[in-house]
Amino acid sequence: MLHLFGATVFWLILSSDNIAMRTYLDCIPCFMKQTLATGRVATSDELLIKKMLDVIGNKIASFSVESTPPEMGKIIYRTIREMTGNNDPYKNQKAIHIAQALKLYDSLQEHVNTSDNKLLTAIRIAIAGNVIDLGMSKPFDMEQDLLTILGQPLAICHLDAFKSTLATAKSILYLGDNSGESVFDKILIEAMQKPVTYVVREHPVINDVTMEDALASGIQEVASIISSGSDAPGILLNDCSDEFSHAFENADMIISKGQGNYETLSEAKRPVFFLLKAKCHVIAHHLGVNENDIVLKDARV
Amino acid sequence: MLHLFGATVFWLILSSDNIAMRTYLDCIPCFMKQTLATGRVATSDELLIKKMLDVIGNKIASFSVESTPPEMGKIIYRTIREMTGNNDPYKNQKAIHIAQALKLYDSLQEHVNTSDNKLLTAIRIAIAGNVIDLGMSKPFDMEQDLLTILGQPLAICHLDAFKSTLATAKSILYLGDNSGESVFDKILIEAMQKPVTYVVREHPVINDVTMEDALASGIQEVASIISSGSDAPGILLNDCSDEFSHAFENADMIISKGQGNYETLSEAKRPVFFLLKAKCHVIAHHLGVNENDIVLKDARV
Repeated sequence: MLHLFGATVFWLILSSDNIAMRTYLDCIPCFMKQTLATGRVATSDELLIKKMLDVIGNKIASFSVESTPPEMGKIIYRTIREMTGNNDPYKNQKAIHIAQALKLYDSLQEHVNTSDNKLLTAIRIAIAGNVIDLGMSKPFDMEQDLLTILGQPLAICHLDAFKSTLATAKSILYLGDNSGESVFDKILIEAMQKPVTYVVREHPVINDVTMEDALASGIQEVASIISSGSDAPGILLNDCSDEFSHAFENADMIISKGQGNYETLSEAKRPVFFLLKAKCHVIAHHLGVNENDIVLKDARV
Repeated sequence: MLHLFGATVFWLILSSDNIAMRTYLDCIPCFMKQTLATGRVATSDELLIKKMLDVIGNKIASFSVESTPPEMGKIIYRTIREMTGNNDPYKNQKAIHIAQALKLYDSLQEHVNTSDNKLLTAIRIAIAGNVIDLGMSKPFDMEQDLLTILGQPLAICHLDAFKSTLATAKSILYLGDNSGESVFDKILIEAMQKPVTYVVREHPVINDVTMEDALASGIQEVASIISSGSDAPGILLNDCSDEFSHAFENADMIISKGQGNYETLSEAKRPVFFLLKAKCHVIAHHLGVNENDIVLKDARV
């Protein structure tokens, strides 16, 4: 039991090697907000969106706080797909963000090449890409936010552990998050100079990167690409394919991008490094940082 | 049908003389947020609060967008009272706000007395009191916000209609909103120099003013006080007492404070004047003003 915001939050150990952040009650109104926001992207039929809110509202009672937010995310986005027939509501926005990021690619690459600390600069760029998040209903300006984050101190910086794990790693599993951010991930993958397997979602969910989006981002030029096997906006180990599970268990190093992957893997007993921007107060408090802080965190610390 | 925010909003004419603002889908996540916020004031038992969220989540399907937000508000706050046994979660905060406002009373009275436009100054003070709202989860600083609002232009200012209606009015019905704000209402009631009946909620709901709160605010010194007969955080005419309904139908002038009363009476065909601060984007858009604007609006215009 963890006391946070004057609230009592329950934790459950799911297995000996994976404990994940659980859902805070604060996430529940946010589930409804996400349903509304994505519903409005998927359809202009407000009465249909009301029905989606009805469905998700009804599911709250059966949703345990011992589950993680991406478990509900999976239900929300699947419900919206099924009720609207729109398989990929954010398809256009994803393509725009990938195109915007690709325009920045050469200058970012140059920025790394001329940097005194190439690896840290590439890590910062990968974190900066995490501002692209359409699940958060917050506006962002890709170029401006990139400049801000490149000069922002890391609130948690386990760089030494990252470097030493990287030095001996023969295989790296890289868990992607948002489309567009994927182009920034490419910069870090290149800087690491190791064999990398990049993980995408099995089906479109929010604006998370899928195989199609990863290919549009050019990831295939620097890494092999596999799917998690799941359409959850995070890594639910029980919901993933055998191929993914095998890769997860055997990778020498795992890089996990963004909040959704953090929510499901926050206490995984694997060499996972979380690269993210804390975009909501729940995640920020769980990490012990301020909202909008950027983080490079070793899961084992 | 009204198109707003790219959304289609349905309106229903309930009766020939009362059309009210209906619920926008944007209000639904906010219902859950209010449940969580008030649940946490009423109890520290997070599992019990989860059950409240389950109950309210389940009620969304049966809640029509043709209803008004205070109809759901009534259900939410009644649910919290029943599940926690806490009949008045905001009791302490209400007492604090009334005490804070009473400390300002003499200087506000002096401010009116030395003003070139006593009535408008008293109206501004009554609107300024509307910053006190614990249903909105927004922080406020009573003294600072008061100073800001006293110098802020009214985004809608039907002062001439207010003056002419007041000039011939023999009876005024004044619909209270928040506790503490009630002290500021007293200033306006005194400035109007007419017989006033002040309306309170029948039972505690959010921090809305009840008979006990009105008495603590000194309203009995300047007006008679009646209850609406309802525990909704707005005026649901079908839910009100005969005494209130008679007063509502026969008053020469009605002053309606705050968002909850506006949501239920926005298109009443009675001489209603709305005095409020637009504290959320839904209300602001419905009024055609910006969020945080202040308004003196004649319902008949």
